[in-house]
Amino acid sequence: MGGDIGIPVTLPAAIDSLEAYPCLHIVLVGDSAALQEAMPKDVAARFGNRLSIRHTTEIVEMDESPVMALRHKKDSSMRRAIDMVKAREADACVSAGNTGALMATARFVLKTLPGIDRPAICVAMPSEHGVVYMLDLGANVDCSPEQLLQFAVMGSAITTAVSGVEKPRVALLNIGIEDIKGNQLVQDAHQLMQKLSGPIEYVGFVEADEFYDAKVDVIVCDGFVGNVALKSVEGVARLIARFIKEEFSRSWLSMFAGLISRSVLSRAGKRMDPRGYNGASLVGLKGIVLKSHGSADRLATAYAIKQAYLQVEQNIPKRIEAGVQDWIGKGA
Amino acid sequence: MGGDIGIPVTLPAAIDSLEAYPCLHIVLVGDSAALQEAMPKDVAARFGNRLSIRHTTEIVEMDESPVMALRHKKDSSMRRAIDMVKAREADACVSAGNTGALMATARFVLKTLPGIDRPAICVAMPSEHGVVYMLDLGANVDCSPEQLLQFAVMGSAITTAVSGVEKPRVALLNIGIEDIKGNQLVQDAHQLMQKLSGPIEYVGFVEADEFYDAKVDVIVCDGFVGNVALKSVEGVARLIARFIKEEFSRSWLSMFAGLISRSVLSRAGKRMDPRGYNGASLVGLKGIVLKSHGSADRLATAYAIKQAYLQVEQNIPKRIEAGVQDWIGKGA
Repeated sequence: MGGDIGIPVTLPAAIDSLEAYPCLHIVLVGDSAALQEAMPKDVAARFGNRLSIRHTTEIVEMDESPVMALRHKKDSSMRRAIDMVKAREADACVSAGNTGALMATARFVLKTLPGIDRPAICVAMPSEHGVVYMLDLGANVDCSPEQLLQFAVMGSAITTAVSGVEKPRVALLNIGIEDIKGNQLVQDAHQLMQKLSGPIEYVGFVEADEFYDAKVDVIVCDGFVGNVALKSVEGVARLIARFIKEEFSRSWLSMFAGLISRSVLSRAGKRMDPRGYNGASLVGLKGIVLKSHGSADRLATAYAIKQAYLQVEQNIPKRIEAGVQDWIGKGA
Repeated sequence: MGGDIGIPVTLPAAIDSLEAYPCLHIVLVGDSAALQEAMPKDVAARFGNRLSIRHTTEIVEMDESPVMALRHKKDSSMRRAIDMVKAREADACVSAGNTGALMATARFVLKTLPGIDRPAICVAMPSEHGVVYMLDLGANVDCSPEQLLQFAVMGSAITTAVSGVEKPRVALLNIGIEDIKGNQLVQDAHQLMQKLSGPIEYVGFVEADEFYDAKVDVIVCDGFVGNVALKSVEGVARLIARFIKEEFSRSWLSMFAGLISRSVLSRAGKRMDPRGYNGASLVGLKGIVLKSHGSADRLATAYAIKQAYLQVEQNIPKRIEAGVQDWIGKGA
């Protein structure tokens, strides 16, 4: 039910995903009547019991406070979907709904893994060398150094599980790379992280303009800073796209050039397309929960579902737990 | 002497600026022999005493700690240039050197304006409606709510002085626009700023993806967050430019398309060109100091000199002081 568009996006994306993954089952949690009405006629024939509906009577609004949602919307689609993960009726939950409410509900229902204070939002960002996992991107706006260290451990576990990197290189986001740079939080976390060992390699600071070509696998930051960085990137990418579009429609000559260049520009655009990395993981929970972007379209939503599918296959929470235990065991 | 390139950039930029502004005088502060050697022969004939050299024996290194620079480099080009502003031998100082050292030296030598705890770094960013002034961009990595409020007052004074906006709209950078969003600092500053009145209009929160189209004149944030936002933008803009370049050189056909589109793309590029807004102001000081980007080229450096020239014309420190006094007078 969530996101800016809701069923007209989530339902087709679910169908695309069932098409793509023959082992996948999807339960659509939400308003049964609305879902039934939007459902293509041939779905039963195509997917049988792989697509089902779980009716719920409430919806968490996009601007609702997490506390209100948690207390008063016990039959919301969001709550029920997470309840299903808790009850092992589902292996993962994907939602495009209210991020704060999703985080609060997931944390309350599923609980965090042992050794993890609070879950974090983690996204795989495109980089020159593949992807770089960045966390936290908005779940924790006031972090302790210990939390940043937990983010490092969680990010490393994901990197190893998904990308097969044995000793992920972890960096701390800072405004300079010299030891003396940074605010108190970053300075304290830097001290702590230098003690990291085992399957993690702490490589020090990284600056925000080096996300993409830095040779690191995991970038750690507090949720406020991470969210600002992510949104800055989204904002400027949109601005550049608009400038390019405007310039190509300025005259007949430039429109002609645009026509010739369309396929080239669209290939470049695809490489930056945020739909290609939609699906933020709520990591550190005893269960898999993915947040799809509120404005995600069909393609982007299907990508978030794919992420969830891969995380189930890789048993990510178990691996994070093992990573954390391993690190605690090392006495750090 | 400062920046990644030094004299081969700063000297030609100085000459360009003297050409552009007939009333401008420039004193090149640094290694006299090196400056003399690089000096074109016709300079004396063209500019007479409008271009002179002040010899200094030391240089603050780009990675030197601000404290070390301040204590031990009393004959550095940076220190001497700021001393000249203090002694009223110069109206403004432009440096491409070590930002931390420049800030510390400027603060020590020039002192802050009454009512201002610490200076901030302020940049005019391109926006859909002209420019938006953003501060702090890295001078203060751990801010108090009161400091953010001072940034708001300083940013407003600059906006009024430079852009002629009578009642600048000030927003606080946050990770959401709802009242409950944000970390403790932003929440506390939000409370404080709502009391802002007089020639300032506080409009609430703005998100980092709305820098460009938000209808605000001033964006306030702590220096750590601001620096991350700025560098995120720089990083992704470079990445996009590279992707576009790579796609246009992928085949003969795309190279042909690139040839046709070159002027269109270059116009779009110019609108994003960071050289077009080079020159970060160190605001809140009893004097004008501008930081040029370390990697600034001739064009960008000339732009920073132009900024300094305009700030002298507009008497920005006096106007900020008046703005602060006005606001203190209002009993906030």
